[in-house]
Amino acid sequence: MDAVDDPRAARMRARMELLYPICRSITGDGVRQTLDVVGEALGPELALERHAVRSGTAAYDWTVNDEWNVRDAWIADPSGRRVVDFRKHTLHLVGYSVPVRSRMSMDELRPHLHTLPEHPDWIPYRTTYYSRTWGFCLSERQLEAMGEGPFDVVVDTTLEPGELTYGELVIPGETDDEILFTTHVCHPSLANDNLSGIVVAVELARALAALPRRRFSYRFVFAPGTIGSITWLSRNRRLLDRIRHGLVLTGLGGPGPLVYKRTRRGDRPVDRAATHVVSRRGGEIRDYSPYGYDERQFNAIGFDLPVGRLSRTPHGEFPEYHTSADDLGFVKDDELLDAYAALVRIVDVLENDAAYINLSPHGEPQLGKRGLYPTTGGKSASDAVMAMLWTLGYSDGCATLLDIADRADLDFALVCRAAADLTRAGLLEPAIVHRRP
Amino acid sequence: MDAVDDPRAARMRARMELLYPICRSITGDGVRQTLDVVGEALGPELALERHAVRSGTAAYDWTVNDEWNVRDAWIADPSGRRVVDFRKHTLHLVGYSVPVRSRMSMDELRPHLHTLPEHPDWIPYRTTYYSRTWGFCLSERQLEAMGEGPFDVVVDTTLEPGELTYGELVIPGETDDEILFTTHVCHPSLANDNLSGIVVAVELARALAALPRRRFSYRFVFAPGTIGSITWLSRNRRLLDRIRHGLVLTGLGGPGPLVYKRTRRGDRPVDRAATHVVSRRGGEIRDYSPYGYDERQFNAIGFDLPVGRLSRTPHGEFPEYHTSADDLGFVKDDELLDAYAALVRIVDVLENDAAYINLSPHGEPQLGKRGLYPTTGGKSASDAVMAMLWTLGYSDGCATLLDIADRADLDFALVCRAAADLTRAGLLEPAIVHRRP
Amino acid sequence: MDAVDDPRAARMRARMELLYPICRSITGDGVRQTLDVVGEALGPELALERHAVRSGTAAYDWTVNDEWNVRDAWIADPSGRRVVDFRKHTLHLVGYSVPVRSRMSMDELRPHLHTLPEHPDWIPYRTTYYSRTWGFCLSERQLEAMGEGPFDVVVDTTLEPGELTYGELVIPGETDDEILFTTHVCHPSLANDNLSGIVVAVELARALAALPRRRFSYRFVFAPGTIGSITWLSRNRRLLDRIRHGLVLTGLGGPGPLVYKRTRRGDRPVDRAATHVVSRRGGEIRDYSPYGYDERQFNAIGFDLPVGRLSRTPHGEFPEYHTSADDLGFVKDDELLDAYAALVRIVDVLENDAAYINLSPHGEPQLGKRGLYPTTGGKSASDAVMAMLWTLGYSDGCATLLDIADRADLDFALVCRAAADLTRAGLLEPAIVHRRP
Repeated sequence: MDAVDDPRAARMRARMELLYPICRSITGDGVRQTLDVVGEALGPELALERHAVRSGTAAYDWTVNDEWNVRDAWIADPSGRRVVDFRKHTLHLVGYSVPVRSRMSMDELRPHLHTLPEHPDWIPYRTTYYSRTWGFCLSERQLEAMGEGPFDVVVDTTLEPGELTYGELVIPGETDDEILFTTHVCHPSLANDNLSGIVVAVELARALAALPRRRFSYRFVFAPGTIGSITWLSRNRRLLDRIRHGLVLTGLGGPGPLVYKRTRRGDRPVDRAATHVVSRRGGEIRDYSPYGYDERQFNAIGFDLPVGRLSRTPHGEFPEYHTSADDLGFVKDDELLDAYAALVRIVDVLENDAAYINLSPHGEPQLGKRGLYPTTGGKSASDAVMAMLWTLGYSDGCATLLDIADRADLDFALVCRAAADLTRAGLLEPAIVHRRP
Repeated sequence: MDAVDDPRAARMRARMELLYPICRSITGDGVRQTLDVVGEALGPELALERHAVRSGTAAYDWTVNDEWNVRDAWIADPSGRRVVDFRKHTLHLVGYSVPVRSRMSMDELRPHLHTLPEHPDWIPYRTTYYSRTWGFCLSERQLEAMGEGPFDVVVDTTLEPGELTYGELVIPGETDDEILFTTHVCHPSLANDNLSGIVVAVELARALAALPRRRFSYRFVFAPGTIGSITWLSRNRRLLDRIRHGLVLTGLGGPGPLVYKRTRRGDRPVDRAATHVVSRRGGEIRDYSPYGYDERQFNAIGFDLPVGRLSRTPHGEFPEYHTSADDLGFVKDDELLDAYAALVRIVDVLENDAAYINLSPHGEPQLGKRGLYPTTGGKSASDAVMAMLWTLGYSDGCATLLDIADRADLDFALVCRAAADLTRAGLLEPAIVHRRP
Repeated sequence: MDAVDDPRAARMRARMELLYPICRSITGDGVRQTLDVVGEALGPELALERHAVRSGTAAYDWTVNDEWNVRDAWIADPSGRRVVDFRKHTLHLVGYSVPVRSRMSMDELRPHLHTLPEHPDWIPYRTTYYSRTWGFCLSERQLEAMGEGPFDVVVDTTLEPGELTYGELVIPGETDDEILFTTHVCHPSLANDNLSGIVVAVELARALAALPRRRFSYRFVFAPGTIGSITWLSRNRRLLDRIRHGLVLTGLGGPGPLVYKRTRRGDRPVDRAATHVVSRRGGEIRDYSPYGYDERQFNAIGFDLPVGRLSRTPHGEFPEYHTSADDLGFVKDDELLDAYAALVRIVDVLENDAAYINLSPHGEPQLGKRGLYPTTGGKSASDAVMAMLWTLGYSDGCATLLDIADRADLDFALVCRAAADLTRAGLLEPAIVHRRP
């Protein structure tokens, strides 16, 4: 995969660079600025709807938090020099820190400082959404150089009733049946987790909008993690029945292989489709566990939605996770393109999987007299013939093209093309009722 | 596991020492003396019922044997010295040997002598329940030293109508549904096979009787192998419907891992429970085969009872099997304790496995505001939180705690504790109908 | 297996030697001569029916070809010497070559010459059934020695309306339910593919005819590949319902292990039977794929017949495949005998598999009092006892002997013998209704 000249890679890279410096959290200006960038990237034809939900609003077992915003935050040493400075890195301030303006000794300050001794140059990422306190994150090296103080500590934040914001985009298709993609937008300057998810989602939405036809409608939700998805669920109960398939997109960069995490039930059509695509690209398939990102909310018993998750380097499984080392350099263009390509192929399966009926089922039809044997030889030609033989051999009106591709160990796309060729030749026709996933 | 100071280990050891010298067989005084020791060990609160069935009584395809008792048995050389002496080891006399009093040459005697040339110091164990003959078992070394005789041969036994004896104990629970434990009591001075089974059963019975509540009633049967269990079955047909789960206990000492042998069907609740416990303790799980101990009788098609078997070193798989080397030294305290602990955990699963319903199923409930996040960190805390998330994530009224523990790869006890905590917090409640196994 | 003195090996060898020189194709005199040899080998009691179908007859999507016959074919150099001569090897002429009589330069001739540069001494096998052209196959060495010509090229063939011929044999049994064996008869001087199939089929037919009783009727079809089997199917539609099991026999010699290729559905009784036999003989089991020999036609959706395939070295998986190196020396006697023996055992399973009922199901019956314990010990005796215990332990009227043999990991024949012994002893009886496969 040559990412160098791929315009999609360039676009995803440019959007990550715009998004990286923004101080995001589960509420506040950072989310709104992020949605600005997303909206811009989607372009005028794809109108990103923005929703605001007031602090205090109930969302099932949860309540929308007060809104948090940061003007500035720093620790200055006795000489007035800022030894820890939010303006240098958004991770320096613990998310949801309450306002502070105080002079304190190192002994007083120390409990509020977080470092990663095992990675002395990295800044950790910490939040305190549900406990009203404050703190700074810094590298171990910074801490070692700080001296004894006293220090001027300023956390110039506001934490007060406001709103939680999320963005939503619907790309209509031929039916109201929906495929849902969600990605969290609450992490500050962390590239893989989750600028990668945001920019791949944007690129995917553009590609889907450009398709000549879509069987499904597509819904993209750009929302803060946990409280954002629960809030969205609580406000869209009537929509949920439409969701046929879904994927949470997160951590799509990094050096690991693609990882598909199954839905809670594990046997939904999206599980079959993603397993086919991801495993054929050398990725891993994992069972559901009730821990991770927003798939936990969509799969909760009360919703039971068929939502899997696509990642590359999942949370907690790479040392850079939730540290300043998850920066723009950690995410490579070809990794994002690979994730994007996998998603396009998963959508291709979901859109086009269907059962067909062999119209010449008494023995193998004579492909030669219909010009269905390729004129040139070689491996790919033979794959094409094999795809036709498998499709004819199993198209009994029940088995779908994905069933056949999995059994034949062939790419879905190849089997899909074989079905199209055979249909054109009058040897196959779609089964009357598409098997509804 | 430190068996040195465990009072249960000491008790089991002491009872094995009492039982070891007794000459047991499928009938006779040895069985009654064994039941005396068992009754004593159970204590006055747990009244062991003793049953006697007259010789000649039909039991399905079998008939209760005549009763066999031994006063003495020996072979003396020309000098009058006892070269083989039943008083030195009960194994020296072939079980069910008919009375003999004769002088004979080595040539005449030799067909009645059994040794183990490959283990020249060991005495084999032989019986002749269904063929009226007699014999002696001795070490190869003894045989080599015997000389040519003539020998005085005395088998001072009685084999005449009498009774077959077995012991039975019921510990009542909240329901009449029963869990059956059986152990054979017909082997003479052999420690693993099966004094280990007898003393573990006694210790387990005491522990179960001490539980504050029991959903199930518990039945322990101490009976001779094969004819004993078939006789018990023939006299308790009306009881059999109550048996929900059962285990044959045998060979619980020795150096091998725990081995659970499945029921004939292989998918009974006791199979699931024992598999969970034994495999998490590093033991082996094996499929049923119609060979072994009394599980053959309970699982026979006409009864089809859900009775598995717990062993450590199964019959025939250790060289000491059915020889004098299966002595008190072959069985170690920590082996017995491990088997005992596994049984306690299996009972815990059977008693407490049930389906629950998540009462806050719309997304993940906020555990923090309910104090369900442990205050201290570390691995076990995180296991406790994960157990809660798994329990919430799958408690749909169908999946039981064991289903969840197996899926989550967590100990049943941990999931059970999570369910209790969540129930107390109002997040979970038992499904109305316990799934009957 | 000592093939040297086996009369079956000698007979199969002799028939292969008769068949090898004949120039077979999908039509023509070679097929008729082949059926002459088969008919002779079957003997007078087994009358091979011969069927002729006129060229141009429709058979589903196909049409019966014109008939092709060869009088002679050669390439002569300027001196008149035949440098490629059909009389020396039938493979020299491309099958279905149209008549040619011409003088041409090497440049003109070369496109019609086929060699195997990677095996310079071998002659390849080529056909041109559906494209009216001509060609010669020769070794690379021959080509190198040919010089520049000019050459006299003679293809003295006829290709004109005639008939397609196939042979058919029915050996009646107690029911009209049939087991079908087919083998293709269209390949010229190629020993493994498929003289091996033809001669094993003949030997099997003789053995089946000699059985004292047959539950099934047996049908053997000796037909050209593809067009032959499709033509047979098109003319026997009303018969197809009777076919309970079937096997395509091809490539039964060569150094590889036996390979059973499953039916399209993969779970037919013939799949279970062949898997049991072939895997216990160290062979391989493979899933169906819609490529190979006539199993493609029988398994096509419109027929969906339970027809698997037995081979040893399957098509395309040995370098000698479709070359002159697949000669009489490539196929060894013990390979043919092994395939034959496997087929006899597969038939044994299909004939005798049935469910039985344990008539003494309450515990294990006393085998000793019925003389069912063998008097001599050793491994085989113990296998016989175990086969009885397994048969008693699982004969609930549902499980069949094959189910039991597979579960017990014992040979079907052993379990079958145990069932017979137990039935004779009154401990077992056949379930009233044989489970129809």
